[in-house]
Amino acid sequence: MRILILNPNSDPQMTAAIEQTAKGFARGAFEVSCRSLDDAPKFIETYRDKLQVGPRMVQLVEAAEDQTDAFIVACHSDPNLDALKEISQKPVVGIGEASMKMATLLGHRFAVITTDRHSIPAKVAQAEKYGLSRDMVSVRAPDKGARYANETELFLALARTAVETDLAEVIVLGCAGLTGLDRQLQRELEVPVLDGVVCALIIASGLVRYGVSTSKVLGYNPHY
Amino acid sequence: MRILILNPNSDPQMTAAIEQTAKGFARGAFEVSCRSLDDAPKFIETYRDKLQVGPRMVQLVEAAEDQTDAFIVACHSDPNLDALKEISQKPVVGIGEASMKMATLLGHRFAVITTDRHSIPAKVAQAEKYGLSRDMVSVRAPDKGARYANETELFLALARTAVETDLAEVIVLGCAGLTGLDRQLQRELEVPVLDGVVCALIIASGLVRYGVSTSKVLGYNPHY
Amino acid sequence: MRILILNPNSDPQMTAAIEQTAKGFARGAFEVSCRSLDDAPKFIETYRDKLQVGPRMVQLVEAAEDQTDAFIVACHSDPNLDALKEISQKPVVGIGEASMKMATLLGHRFAVITTDRHSIPAKVAQAEKYGLSRDMVSVRAPDKGARYANETELFLALARTAVETDLAEVIVLGCAGLTGLDRQLQRELEVPVLDGVVCALIIASGLVRYGVSTSKVLGYNPHY
Amino acid sequence: MRILILNPNSDPQMTAAIEQTAKGFARGAFEVSCRSLDDAPKFIETYRDKLQVGPRMVQLVEAAEDQTDAFIVACHSDPNLDALKEISQKPVVGIGEASMKMATLLGHRFAVITTDRHSIPAKVAQAEKYGLSRDMVSVRAPDKGARYANETELFLALARTAVETDLAEVIVLGCAGLTGLDRQLQRELEVPVLDGVVCALIIASGLVRYGVSTSKVLGYNPHY
Amino acid sequence: MRILILNPNSDPQMTAAIEQTAKGFARGAFEVSCRSLDDAPKFIETYRDKLQVGPRMVQLVEAAEDQTDAFIVACHSDPNLDALKEISQKPVVGIGEASMKMATLLGHRFAVITTDRHSIPAKVAQAEKYGLSRDMVSVRAPDKGARYANETELFLALARTAVETDLAEVIVLGCAGLTGLDRQLQRELEVPVLDGVVCALIIASGLVRYGVSTSKVLGYNPHY
Amino acid sequence: MRILILNPNSDPQMTAAIEQTAKGFARGAFEVSCRSLDDAPKFIETYRDKLQVGPRMVQLVEAAEDQTDAFIVACHSDPNLDALKEISQKPVVGIGEASMKMATLLGHRFAVITTDRHSIPAKVAQAEKYGLSRDMVSVRAPDKGARYANETELFLALARTAVETDLAEVIVLGCAGLTGLDRQLQRELEVPVLDGVVCALIIASGLVRYGVSTSKVLGYNPHY
Repeated sequence: MRILILNPNSDPQMTAAIEQTAKGFARGAFEVSCRSLDDAPKFIETYRDKLQVGPRMVQLVEAAEDQTDAFIVACHSDPNLDALKEISQKPVVGIGEASMKMATLLGHRFAVITTDRHSIPAKVAQAEKYGLSRDMVSVRAPDKGARYANETELFLALARTAVETDLAEVIVLGCAGLTGLDRQLQRELEVPVLDGVVCALIIASGLVRYGVSTSKVLGYNPHY
Repeated sequence: MRILILNPNSDPQMTAAIEQTAKGFARGAFEVSCRSLDDAPKFIETYRDKLQVGPRMVQLVEAAEDQTDAFIVACHSDPNLDALKEISQKPVVGIGEASMKMATLLGHRFAVITTDRHSIPAKVAQAEKYGLSRDMVSVRAPDKGARYANETELFLALARTAVETDLAEVIVLGCAGLTGLDRQLQRELEVPVLDGVVCALIIASGLVRYGVSTSKVLGYNPHY
Repeated sequence: MRILILNPNSDPQMTAAIEQTAKGFARGAFEVSCRSLDDAPKFIETYRDKLQVGPRMVQLVEAAEDQTDAFIVACHSDPNLDALKEISQKPVVGIGEASMKMATLLGHRFAVITTDRHSIPAKVAQAEKYGLSRDMVSVRAPDKGARYANETELFLALARTAVETDLAEVIVLGCAGLTGLDRQLQRELEVPVLDGVVCALIIASGLVRYGVSTSKVLGYNPHY
Repeated sequence: MRILILNPNSDPQMTAAIEQTAKGFARGAFEVSCRSLDDAPKFIETYRDKLQVGPRMVQLVEAAEDQTDAFIVACHSDPNLDALKEISQKPVVGIGEASMKMATLLGHRFAVITTDRHSIPAKVAQAEKYGLSRDMVSVRAPDKGARYANETELFLALARTAVETDLAEVIVLGCAGLTGLDRQLQRELEVPVLDGVVCALIIASGLVRYGVSTSKVLGYNPHY
Repeated sequence: MRILILNPNSDPQMTAAIEQTAKGFARGAFEVSCRSLDDAPKFIETYRDKLQVGPRMVQLVEAAEDQTDAFIVACHSDPNLDALKEISQKPVVGIGEASMKMATLLGHRFAVITTDRHSIPAKVAQAEKYGLSRDMVSVRAPDKGARYANETELFLALARTAVETDLAEVIVLGCAGLTGLDRQLQRELEVPVLDGVVCALIIASGLVRYGVSTSKVLGYNPHY
Repeated sequence: MRILILNPNSDPQMTAAIEQTAKGFARGAFEVSCRSLDDAPKFIETYRDKLQVGPRMVQLVEAAEDQTDAFIVACHSDPNLDALKEISQKPVVGIGEASMKMATLLGHRFAVITTDRHSIPAKVAQAEKYGLSRDMVSVRAPDKGARYANETELFLALARTAVETDLAEVIVLGCAGLTGLDRQLQRELEVPVLDGVVCALIIASGLVRYGVSTSKVLGYNPHY
């Protein structure tokens, strides 16, 4: 089984970190690699960023379709996910949908911690798209000018507020760039902390093993 | 006041029809023109179609920004609308959002009639995105192989079923290609029948006159 | 085109202010005037106030029906709006529905600022009636005994809290008596601030130009 | 304990029938009477009807306030109920809210049967106002020109369809004029059939006995 | 009329207090008694507690079915209520559903005050089960280590915060163990404070008098 | 890795079939077995059935806790799932929640096919509990007295109606007893058909591999 992870930005460090997380989960049970888009923005943040990388994501999936058993989109906003589900015969899983839906299996309410207040409205809209508004108790992002010893302390503080003030029972890492923070936060907070890359791998590898993929009967049929 | 309508497909007939509808509404009170995208698909139907035309829509808006007071996206699925609202300082209105929200002001429930069953799931998702699921009583599209004397008879029949069976009080034309059908259907059915091009013009020209545009304080801020 | 605005209270200053706002928007493109009800309460606040003015509003609309192309109800709680839509053949637009629905076109979430905590439950119920609970992030009203240099400072402070704390991207003035505050607040806060009188004029004048009015096929049919 | 039922129309037969139902339930445990409004319409159906009777309903409640322990509004659309809750210190219960909320205690989903298709949109809006859209599986009204041996057969047929086709487990009589039909329909269909007059009496008499009435702390405070 | 109240825990003091409240409301108009389960936990708090007492609750209802006209479950989480509605031919009312639904008749929004933060997620889920999420503005429970002169002061403080901060108009006592606090809190706060035991008695005794019970046509039919 | 599947009924054939499905999916990658409850009902259908088997399910989980890495509840109504999540430190997954949430990743809307009309209201309530009402387009069960060549034909017909009439894009097998039907229905209908046993295995085995389990911070904390 070969799973290909698309990192829709062009940050090689993030791509490497995602791949490390993925291989650490796979432990050889299946092949997994992560590819980024060469001329993509350094970071996917705006609606325009998501739109700009769309055609390149399509190209990459089409080129890899034959040698790949499942695709994962490793940006927590799940950019262009509907189009990829439509064009591929293979399972395509977004780390946003996978992590937020997995969270609902592990506790009553979850919170998303993310890197910037700017992305809160889009994250709220994303939860609505998936019918998860009720289950997502809050989105926490750092205030402008917040000062912390390091990134881990910053996100730990956000997650702690989500647990203690918002009564979140599960924390979802709301950005692929946070990959790897799950263990440490989980240790400190004693609540499940979900890395979308792992959640998407669970579902994608499971679907491949099951032999089930996106329905082509109506809305995801590319040849209507 | 100059309003530019983007027809994101490449059908010159549809572009001409949209422009005719728009000029017929404007009656010289403001300038309005419709432009299509040269290398776009003939018809925008799939998720991939919507994604493919995204970068070109951005280019077109950016190129026209200085000479334009408001933009309208003339595809009823409102493709890439969030990105255009983000990049432009001018009002950007989708014919889908405009027509469906206008419909809620004219009756208790509305129905959308559209060209193909394939687009029903995406139309339902679009209504959810706008919080209109409760108000959209049905989406009606022709069955495969349905035979009618002509297109008008076909859509008249769909709209009549929406009114009589689904108790829709307002009909929304769910495709820019249906522009111009509103008068005839309204005459036959004696219910409001809304052409999204006109609805978007009402709102866009009104916002220009008012001097109000998309909020740039958070989620539509292009420089987060 | 002649548009008649009903101010359902009896405050001549508010009536004058509303008319000034309306004429300032119309700039001669259409005729617009505002009339109040002689023996109405000074201010419409309670459920009883709304009910008491109902029969007079009906009379006024019936008397003016023939010389009027569209009616606007200039009280943000939209009192008796369903009945007026039912009795008139002309478009009838409430400033509450117009402003709150317009707000959804300009940002992800809006807030309403209003004059009194007492009206918060009714404003929440009104948003639910229109299916806008999801989009209305908060209703902000002054605490009892709040002290401010002047009214503008007071409502500016409320709106600022809505933007900074509640993450509202658009502000809706929740009372016809606040007409005229939009420009100043918009300048200070750099977010769209919507005056319902203008929003209703945009829609009402647009509907007249389009030749579309309330559906009479079922629930607004006065002769069932 | 004295409970006063307001029939907001002017049909003396309906008033008598409502009073008979009420006395039959009370069986002397409390006093109950029903009064109609002299110059009201014969039947309350349109939005205008509801509005027209508002000031008279207020007068009647104010005049009876001192000698009455609780009020019931015996029109299933609960006209002007918020205003009456506001002006009275005594419990005020609508037969619509009472019957539809009672229905949720007796089965998974309920249906409302009513006298005219015209009132379906308003009934749907009423269920939304009470947050009951999820629980109300359908509103059934006779088709125009439907022929039945008698009224009972007609409403029995509607209720049967609601049970067998819509899977309603409880039937709510959606018009005060249907009072008295509950027993017969219940016998035929073997499902609970609720008369709103009785449901409102259960709640109103219970609240009087409990010594609890409408909250006056905020939204129903008449002296804000 | 004989109503049997089940206290699903084994605390004799709580059983006595519930019975005292019940007899105080009944004032001889009907017979009412409260029974606890011998080997039940001292307090019902966890999901496991609720499940453990299920079979005993079934036994108790079956044994008492013939001599009882209605059953009440006196634990605010309404444990095993669906099963009891299914097995009994008599009305079965939970104090949770009765009090929360009654609250919606008395004010725009209600809050629940309860004994422990631990039960907040389950209370939120319970409100969702009944379709009351919109109407329940908050659940307030004491912080760990909160210090108060006595229990009444503690719950008074919680309820006051719910009224002043959350804008609750009605308070629901979220635990059968709080029975008897309603009068005192109501006096202090001047808002309705509802004891679920009384609310359930109002509905149960009313249903017995009406001769209506749980629908057996589909989902509560024990012999499907 | 050892996963234990609980079949809460006492049908040895169903237990064997579930185990066969599970082993067929595991293909030796992890150990999996299925156990039934000796004195349970032959079939879990009523609310009472679910309640009766609760204490035995708790016993079984507690007894197996130390030798088991994850538990699966193999009844599509997910009986007593909250309690099992609470008492175990290991992941506990219900086949109902797993299959319905997995379905949302593979198509726009899903339908559940089940064995009896009687269980439709409970299935609808279960979807609401998981926040999936919007995504579950229908529940289809055989009419009483429906005649089919064999069970497969019967459920194939139900699923086909769900796809063609209700526009379901994914089919969920709504009963553990239907295990094994997925392949054949999928072949015939060309839509994903999900067996909850497999879906739960995907998630449970993934969570074990990930090292994440139910949150114990609040609502599932057994020692509150």
